[in-house]
Amino acid sequence: MFLYVFVVVESVGEGVDDIKEGDHVLTIFNGECGECTYCKSKTTNLCAKFRVDPLQSVMRNDGKTRFLTQDGKPIYHFLNTSTFSEYTVMDSACVVKINPKAPLNTMTLLSCCLSTGVGSVINTANIHQGSTVAVFGLGAVGLAVILGAKTRGASTIIGIDINDDKRIKGQRLGMTNFINPSELKTSVHEKISEMTEGGVDFSFECAGNLDVLREAFLSTHDGWGLTVVLGIHPTPRMLPLHPMELFDGRTITGSVFGGCKGKTQLPLFVDQFMNMEDLKLEEFITHELPFNKIDQAFELLIHGKSLRCLLHF
Amino acid sequence: MFLYVFVVVESVGEGVDDIKEGDHVLTIFNGECGECTYCKSKTTNLCAKFRVDPLQSVMRNDGKTRFLTQDGKPIYHFLNTSTFSEYTVMDSACVVKINPKAPLNTMTLLSCCLSTGVGSVINTANIHQGSTVAVFGLGAVGLAVILGAKTRGASTIIGIDINDDKRIKGQRLGMTNFINPSELKTSVHEKISEMTEGGVDFSFECAGNLDVLREAFLSTHDGWGLTVVLGIHPTPRMLPLHPMELFDGRTITGSVFGGCKGKTQLPLFVDQFMNMEDLKLEEFITHELPFNKIDQAFELLIHGKSLRCLLHF
Ligand SMILES: NC(=O)c1ccc[n+]([C@@H]2O[C@H](COP(=O)([O-])OP(=O)(O)OC[C@H]3O[C@@H](n4cnc5c(N)ncnc54)[C@H](O)[C@@H]3O)[C@@H](O)[C@H]2O)c1
Ligand SMILES: NC(=O)c1ccc[n+]([C@@H]2O[C@H](COP(=O)([O-])OP(=O)(O)OC[C@H]3O[C@@H](n4cnc5c(N)ncnc54)[C@H](O)[C@@H]3O)[C@@H](O)[C@H]2O)c1
Ligand SMILES: [Zn+2]
Ligand SMILES: [Zn+2]
Repeated sequence: MFLYVFVVVESVGEGVDDIKEGDHVLTIFNGECGECTYCKSKTTNLCAKFRVDPLQSVMRNDGKTRFLTQDGKPIYHFLNTSTFSEYTVMDSACVVKINPKAPLNTMTLLSCCLSTGVGSVINTANIHQGSTVAVFGLGAVGLAVILGAKTRGASTIIGIDINDDKRIKGQRLGMTNFINPSELKTSVHEKISEMTEGGVDFSFECAGNLDVLREAFLSTHDGWGLTVVLGIHPTPRMLPLHPMELFDGRTITGSVFGGCKGKTQLPLFVDQFMNMEDLKLEEFITHELPFNKIDQAFELLIHGKSLRCLLHF
Repeated sequence: MFLYVFVVVESVGEGVDDIKEGDHVLTIFNGECGECTYCKSKTTNLCAKFRVDPLQSVMRNDGKTRFLTQDGKPIYHFLNTSTFSEYTVMDSACVVKINPKAPLNTMTLLSCCLSTGVGSVINTANIHQGSTVAVFGLGAVGLAVILGAKTRGASTIIGIDINDDKRIKGQRLGMTNFINPSELKTSVHEKISEMTEGGVDFSFECAGNLDVLREAFLSTHDGWGLTVVLGIHPTPRMLPLHPMELFDGRTITGSVFGGCKGKTQLPLFVDQFMNMEDLKLEEFITHELPFNKIDQAFELLIHGKSLRCLLHF
């Protein structure tokens, strides 16, 4: 649930050579230092530099913050980016230089929801043409999954949301079927199994709810179904799956930032997306407000009235 | 924990054309009909014909059993094979014709533990040369995982068992390190992380214990570790994993019969194994008893004194 602003580099520190003043950049919470074991592995987008609490982050070179203090306590960097401010200071591993001709108002979506959704389809699930897909929760992340699935040629893309307003958005982006769980007499997974002869190939959990996660898991076809968890689950509850259920051949996996290695993959996304006319990225930006109305922007988001809101200074 | 006997076909029913009288065959609990959606998919070894309770199975063509009744109740087929008897009747989808020159006393191991262990390495995990591996529980299944990992060229194969007698067996089959958890001051996963710079690439749970399963999960490297569950977990407890732990990039998956499509893959295994001199399959057969001592054979197994026991009539 982030809100993004356009970012142009104002100044760079010592030792940074891939970014210079005036560059158009995307900020990413999931940094890529390029040097650590993780960054050098093809299999992950984790980075050793950022395996710490992202809610209390500091600059990695000296372990200090770059903001003022409040009541004597440091103001930490938020998710390594701290972009709810006019100026911010960031580790260069979290700053991605992109094509200066790219429209920053839509490309800024790549800083989170768009890369997460599309990336999870491409990197994590690696879905193929003709795949059947179910997407649980049609916020900006879920809608980006729909977009990614459509560009990969999925044959069936079922969107599931308790908010009926999401039906039209989903359809515009490529969803082929919509389920509102509150209108069903059966469980969602039974409905999906019926619609798809035994379940979808891939399901994506983008609601941040463990009961939805279980439905998403059971909605996949036994034998080969893969569930990708995108939702954040700040709950003490454990995974609601029995170990023997793994023997039905369904797999579950998590996806942080859609498995994207930001500094490597985002510039390529930008170039691709710039050339795709029918991409409809503007569908994701439902509101624009001045920065001093940031609280109102949050209200819209929390109540499911907006997808992403641009803030301007 | 099955005990197997040599199997030679005595007679075949109508419509069966791939097996004939006198053939040497392996019996498999995990049938392969070759015709269903699952059998036709490359991604699974489930079979629609056998997606039912394996403890109360019947012949699929007429839904009846082929054994006598006891107190008026049917004696069901056990795990589709019912091989604790001198004669049995089976669905041909569970009967695998093999090279008649193969030594049946060791090849019978392919009916369960050997295919499960080796198959999980090849089919499920698909480990590669240089992989690091941890195997939890060194019964016949765990030892077969070690064997499979060795043939794939794993660089480190750590065996973990609370029974110290397993150390020597493991070493003979290719294990490079042994951990007896009761001798440790730390947790097993901390020890493994220390030994392998952050964890192994693959772990295999072959103990059938959920606390062991959690250790196996945490023993893999974050970012890319894969845990393969082989143990049967007849417990009401759910998976002891928090959903957010999936965001550390570790994956967990189940493997039934090592992901082997029995009728397709076992004849190939037989041919390969016949030609591998240093395979040491006889290490798995620690005892041989007459059939009327079957109870004693179970006792040996339950108390960790035997791996597999051949029964003869
Ligand atoms: N994995 C990552 O790297 C990553 C990145 C960004 C966001 N996230 C997480 O992804 C999730 C989605 O983010 P978002 O910005 O799209 O959120 P959002 O709140 O805009 O969207 C969530 C959607 O789920 C729907 N929903 C809620 N309960 C439901 C239910 N029971 N059944 C069906 N639908 C239900 C809501 O109506 C809403 O449309 C959040 O949990 C967010 O924290 C994860
Ligand atoms: N997935 C499948 O298709 C499949 C096939 C066959 C067997 N199995 C299952 O695989 C498991 C292993 O089978 P097996 O025949 O090798 O069993 P086994 O009983 O011979 O071996 C289990 C081993 O685990 C060890 N162990 C027990 N508790 C432990 C602990 N806390 N820490 C470390 N080690 C511990 C025991 O000492 C023993 O050596 C069983 O659960 C069995 O039911 C599954
Ligand atoms: Zn890094
Ligand atoms: Zn089949």
